[in-house]
Amino acid sequence: MDTLPEQRDIQQHLLDSYRLVRKHTESICAPLQTEDYVVQPIGDVSPPKWHLGHTTWFFETFILVPNMDGYRVFDPHFDYVFNSYYETVGARVIRTDRGNLSRPTVAEIFQYRKYVDAHIEQLGSLDSKNGLWDILELGIHHEQQHQELLLMDIKYILGHNPLFPMYSNEMVLDELEVVREVPVAFSEGAYWIGHKGKGFCFDNEKGRHLVYLDTFEIAQHPVGNGEYLEFIQDGGYTDFRFWHAAGWDWVNKNHIKAPLYWHFMDGQWMEYGLQGIHEVDPKKAVCHISYYEAAAFAAWSGKRLPTETEWEVASEQIKWGHRWEWTESAYLPYPKFKKAKGAIGEYNGKFMVDQMVLRGASVATPKGHSRKTYRNFFQTDRRWQFSGLRLAK
Amino acid sequence: MDTLPEQRDIQQHLLDSYRLVRKHTESICAPLQTEDYVVQPIGDVSPPKWHLGHTTWFFETFILVPNMDGYRVFDPHFDYVFNSYYETVGARVIRTDRGNLSRPTVAEIFQYRKYVDAHIEQLGSLDSKNGLWDILELGIHHEQQHQELLLMDIKYILGHNPLFPMYSNEMVLDELEVVREVPVAFSEGAYWIGHKGKGFCFDNEKGRHLVYLDTFEIAQHPVGNGEYLEFIQDGGYTDFRFWHAAGWDWVNKNHIKAPLYWHFMDGQWMEYGLQGIHEVDPKKAVCHISYYEAAAFAAWSGKRLPTETEWEVASEQIKWGHRWEWTESAYLPYPKFKKAKGAIGEYNGKFMVDQMVLRGASVATPKGHSRKTYRNFFQTDRRWQFSGLRLAK
Amino acid sequence: MDTLPEQRDIQQHLLDSYRLVRKHTESICAPLQTEDYVVQPIGDVSPPKWHLGHTTWFFETFILVPNMDGYRVFDPHFDYVFNSYYETVGARVIRTDRGNLSRPTVAEIFQYRKYVDAHIEQLGSLDSKNGLWDILELGIHHEQQHQELLLMDIKYILGHNPLFPMYSNEMVLDELEVVREVPVAFSEGAYWIGHKGKGFCFDNEKGRHLVYLDTFEIAQHPVGNGEYLEFIQDGGYTDFRFWHAAGWDWVNKNHIKAPLYWHFMDGQWMEYGLQGIHEVDPKKAVCHISYYEAAAFAAWSGKRLPTETEWEVASEQIKWGHRWEWTESAYLPYPKFKKAKGAIGEYNGKFMVDQMVLRGASVATPKGHSRKTYRNFFQTDRRWQFSGLRLAK
Amino acid sequence: MDTLPEQRDIQQHLLDSYRLVRKHTESICAPLQTEDYVVQPIGDVSPPKWHLGHTTWFFETFILVPNMDGYRVFDPHFDYVFNSYYETVGARVIRTDRGNLSRPTVAEIFQYRKYVDAHIEQLGSLDSKNGLWDILELGIHHEQQHQELLLMDIKYILGHNPLFPMYSNEMVLDELEVVREVPVAFSEGAYWIGHKGKGFCFDNEKGRHLVYLDTFEIAQHPVGNGEYLEFIQDGGYTDFRFWHAAGWDWVNKNHIKAPLYWHFMDGQWMEYGLQGIHEVDPKKAVCHISYYEAAAFAAWSGKRLPTETEWEVASEQIKWGHRWEWTESAYLPYPKFKKAKGAIGEYNGKFMVDQMVLRGASVATPKGHSRKTYRNFFQTDRRWQFSGLRLAK
Repeated sequence: MDTLPEQRDIQQHLLDSYRLVRKHTESICAPLQTEDYVVQPIGDVSPPKWHLGHTTWFFETFILVPNMDGYRVFDPHFDYVFNSYYETVGARVIRTDRGNLSRPTVAEIFQYRKYVDAHIEQLGSLDSKNGLWDILELGIHHEQQHQELLLMDIKYILGHNPLFPMYSNEMVLDELEVVREVPVAFSEGAYWIGHKGKGFCFDNEKGRHLVYLDTFEIAQHPVGNGEYLEFIQDGGYTDFRFWHAAGWDWVNKNHIKAPLYWHFMDGQWMEYGLQGIHEVDPKKAVCHISYYEAAAFAAWSGKRLPTETEWEVASEQIKWGHRWEWTESAYLPYPKFKKAKGAIGEYNGKFMVDQMVLRGASVATPKGHSRKTYRNFFQTDRRWQFSGLRLAK
Repeated sequence: MDTLPEQRDIQQHLLDSYRLVRKHTESICAPLQTEDYVVQPIGDVSPPKWHLGHTTWFFETFILVPNMDGYRVFDPHFDYVFNSYYETVGARVIRTDRGNLSRPTVAEIFQYRKYVDAHIEQLGSLDSKNGLWDILELGIHHEQQHQELLLMDIKYILGHNPLFPMYSNEMVLDELEVVREVPVAFSEGAYWIGHKGKGFCFDNEKGRHLVYLDTFEIAQHPVGNGEYLEFIQDGGYTDFRFWHAAGWDWVNKNHIKAPLYWHFMDGQWMEYGLQGIHEVDPKKAVCHISYYEAAAFAAWSGKRLPTETEWEVASEQIKWGHRWEWTESAYLPYPKFKKAKGAIGEYNGKFMVDQMVLRGASVATPKGHSRKTYRNFFQTDRRWQFSGLRLAK
Repeated sequence: MDTLPEQRDIQQHLLDSYRLVRKHTESICAPLQTEDYVVQPIGDVSPPKWHLGHTTWFFETFILVPNMDGYRVFDPHFDYVFNSYYETVGARVIRTDRGNLSRPTVAEIFQYRKYVDAHIEQLGSLDSKNGLWDILELGIHHEQQHQELLLMDIKYILGHNPLFPMYSNEMVLDELEVVREVPVAFSEGAYWIGHKGKGFCFDNEKGRHLVYLDTFEIAQHPVGNGEYLEFIQDGGYTDFRFWHAAGWDWVNKNHIKAPLYWHFMDGQWMEYGLQGIHEVDPKKAVCHISYYEAAAFAAWSGKRLPTETEWEVASEQIKWGHRWEWTESAYLPYPKFKKAKGAIGEYNGKFMVDQMVLRGASVATPKGHSRKTYRNFFQTDRRWQFSGLRLAK
Repeated sequence: MDTLPEQRDIQQHLLDSYRLVRKHTESICAPLQTEDYVVQPIGDVSPPKWHLGHTTWFFETFILVPNMDGYRVFDPHFDYVFNSYYETVGARVIRTDRGNLSRPTVAEIFQYRKYVDAHIEQLGSLDSKNGLWDILELGIHHEQQHQELLLMDIKYILGHNPLFPMYSNEMVLDELEVVREVPVAFSEGAYWIGHKGKGFCFDNEKGRHLVYLDTFEIAQHPVGNGEYLEFIQDGGYTDFRFWHAAGWDWVNKNHIKAPLYWHFMDGQWMEYGLQGIHEVDPKKAVCHISYYEAAAFAAWSGKRLPTETEWEVASEQIKWGHRWEWTESAYLPYPKFKKAKGAIGEYNGKFMVDQMVLRGASVATPKGHSRKTYRNFFQTDRRWQFSGLRLAK
């Protein structure tokens, strides 16, 4: 069966996107030294070379292997090196963490990328079967997610090196300055929530449905470093009354005194950024805080975090986009949520427990990857993502 | 100022309740040996003698000390032995877990109870100030909560002893038999949720509000052991597709193969109950499962857990009451939730993170302590509470 | 075959010892409350009721079961409750630590003791086979070792209770006062080491052999609290130069600042003793220190610990007996060491690794249980035993 | 004061040695990929780049800084990156493990080596003060020790990579084949032990002294893989009777079934070597076993390990040199052991606890670095060193 002209356009567009996204991933890595690709200082942080391999493995495994006759995998060992759900098979039991693997080398992984890219270029001549193009689109968005993870992980690796190396001078990010303006008010009623229209979205955004909301107010900007410094100076980290019980344990067990990457040096709060260490700027939105910290700040300020529903309802009347914003909503399925069949169906559903939703987008989110219905999620103690907060009432 | 006659009645009623509740706690402990009061096999389980002391400490600290002139505390050390948020003060740093404390003895704690009870009896002659009677009511409900915890903890202590000692022969609990009947259906619309009326409720139930629900169906009975055995025999515990990622890790790390207290002996599934070890009865509702297990069972059955809203809406048309039922709702504040001032305000709010809501009541819940709006909560991996599940769609 | 008259005397003597030792164990426990028998604050410390059961289990398992026709064990479950090498058998996998077992009760264990004692009384009429009397003698010495362990464990249990309960008023121990006298000197040469003669000794003392020693001096008394306080005040615990690398890690990781049971209260060093809390007495020998502390003190004083050989050579010319004294010798087999066959052979040999030898005896050592050739042993970080040190050069 | 001609010769010889040793370290690293220099799969294993920096830091810190006027350190941060006793100073608390540091890069560390080497070349013109030449000699032997550590660590890094990469084809090591010959016998008497003569030795070998030995026999060769396979096949790893109690715990907790680097593949025992994976050769000496395994093998064979004294006495009549051999001696100071003053004095003394002595030398020991009096030492569970055993009786 022939492909229709309209379909051909869509396919061409997808292949263009593929090329751009693949190239962008490599440009993110351009400022790195070979050594930076290898290390894994904590379990959450993957070595950059793993991201390069894993995103490539996704296209090889779900596109090339099932669809391209005679395709030979680049290296059969890569299946358990780059599969995120790696379980060793057979008698050769070797326990390793990703950060302990010096091989395959960075150069070999770049060859792997080239090899897979070259084969993907030949897809245009294939029939559209097995939802091939849908999976290609998912793979592109998957790689965009890993682009943000790459920047999170690179920042962690360099920011936890005692030499505080700079990532890139060019990364002087043009961030919004936060302003304390009157909040926006919304009236009581039932509101529609969830993704609408034909554009791409993840399965967790689907199932548009009504949610009944009470009246609420929500701030126009996220909370700034200036306000956060007031919280610190007011003893916010040492007064249990502002904290969840689990948050208070976390603060004390880990000796938390400020956001991640903040260091008190010579009487001043400094912050490690991708361009190196610098003074905390009170006009920028606070970043790298956990849900526990966001909730404690809100309690201290006498307000609360918005729910994800409130955030989505308000999204067109507030300024958002340079921080992921913690909400007071747990990451749970929407009423009509359905998992896809097979491995792809595991994309989101199996993470819907023990996590909170963040809304918005960050300085590290790739262009074209943010939506007002996008549901990001992290566990309550995580803060290496670019996370801040916004107040509601 | 004199107390009004109506108030006097309420006070008399509260003192009557106080006496009954205090007596019931001690009757729960009657079948125990002295040694059973002392041990703490895991962090979640408190030694029974700690419950006896802690509930008493609550009345001493929040009622007697602030309201009764000249009251002398029974023993000043008890403040850090029985305070649930005990932090050692000063240079004498001694780390202890509750299960390592052989003193105060059980006999001393029973004396403590008598001493506090005798002083509470004198309250009737006091003016009602500082919300004294509200706090007494809260203390009574607090002790009822500990009555259920006592039974949970006693069962854990005896059920993890290799001798499997019986708790009580008389505790042949008259439980419902589960039946597989057609589910009850509900139509789309906005429903009122939360506590209503003058009776006692906890702060987390307050703030009645509307929730918009899609159509849904909910089972008339909780899931029975018979169905749960089918899940086990169908490989439910060994197929990752039914599980959340975190649940799958939990199953594998802890080698979970069945509900807590189940043992496969001589080719048969046996269950430890308060009356000793016996065969699993397929007609009884399954008990002692974690949220992960409840969600995996629901995924296996092609259905889902109800949300807490759906459960509350349906509560008058379904049979409930002998199992706490996991819901698909995270334990989060209701829209209008407000913390009380001071220590009492910490009663619930600070636990509203990283937990899921359970609805219903169990065989161990004291009479008069259950409500259709009651919000119980546990972390997703806990299962020493009397927890089961009900299916929805 | 008839028993010879001389043998009968030996047997009668052993039965007399048995009765005395069994009675003494129970007198050690007399001041305890039931609750004190149950807890296990750290892995090294066993609940007193376990010692009562385990020593009894030894006689039942190694004497009564193999030698007495028709003997019925008191309770077949006790084999895995009181066996120190308990491994659960079969499908009923229940992990427990000793301190989590509330059953069997203390009363039941005392019944167990009576039952076994009554059967041992009937031994006199038995033929001496299977080395029965040798094992009885070993069992008696085994129970004496547990008498010292009982006092160590009771002290730990009560001394880590925030109420600091007294064990016994009568236990005002008549300890030596330490004096700083000129050390005793010994000349170079080969010395005989190891047990000699017919009296009882453990297998690790056997194999008398020559050891070549250089000239050495050894103190007449152990180190006193007074000198140890000087070490503390001179910064002994904060200067890494005095410590082994592993000792320095141990000090910092565990925030060690003084011997176990010492507390700095209101500007003064206090010590928990079996009679309660009291001031540190500078004239008493320092107690409850680890090998790391003993070695650091010796380094600070410019001297060293004696080897176990030097200690044994000097033993008749120095005052010893109220502290176990750390030596600079690892616990290793003597040149001619041989393990006995079977379970009894495991008594000592399998512990000959990763431990250091202590010589002498302590206030808690039962009368008749000390010898100059006795080799006690503990790991380098342990200090709940009654351990001190003596200097050599 | 002028340097004497004889001294000049010694100095010239030392500078020649310096150049050779520094060059050899780099030749060991020649087969590595940049990525291999960075990782640290377990705490014991240091990243190769750390060894390169640390050995250089030793010369900079102890030779150049105190002796060369106007010397500027290469990078002041390197002091805490390459000091083996790194403790972060001040408020900037950043916890890192060596394997998390991607910077300094490998290239920067090679520049550091060049910089320090160039300055060392200028030493010849310096007066011999402060024991400069003694410390240079110590630094050379220190770097030789790290050459062996480098090979141990490289083997661990590559041998725990699921791709099993080869280190070097040229490293086909010409090892002795073991033969089962009659043991050598020695008579009873006092023997001299310890280093003698003018050559270099470490402080732990000094203090020559007499040791009295009983008659003993010792094998001419270390134990071979063939015999070790018999031990495995005879159930050596599953029979507790052969093991120390601590060894038995270690075996079970870590699921130990064979020496490190052994893998049972397709019905055959394979071994990872520096040239890749290959069959276990029964004629080669067994390697990579812990003290626990060595002692268990000896118990199984009905013999024992030699003491370090016996080994030294026998050293000229037995074949040794390609395996470090576990002895039955704890690593403790010789009778006359004295620590040097200052930082250098910590070289050995502070490790004299909780370790066992190994004698001999391995395939990875640099030429000229082995002596019959050399005392190597490791903890009882370590086995990434090239360790085997020899039997005695």
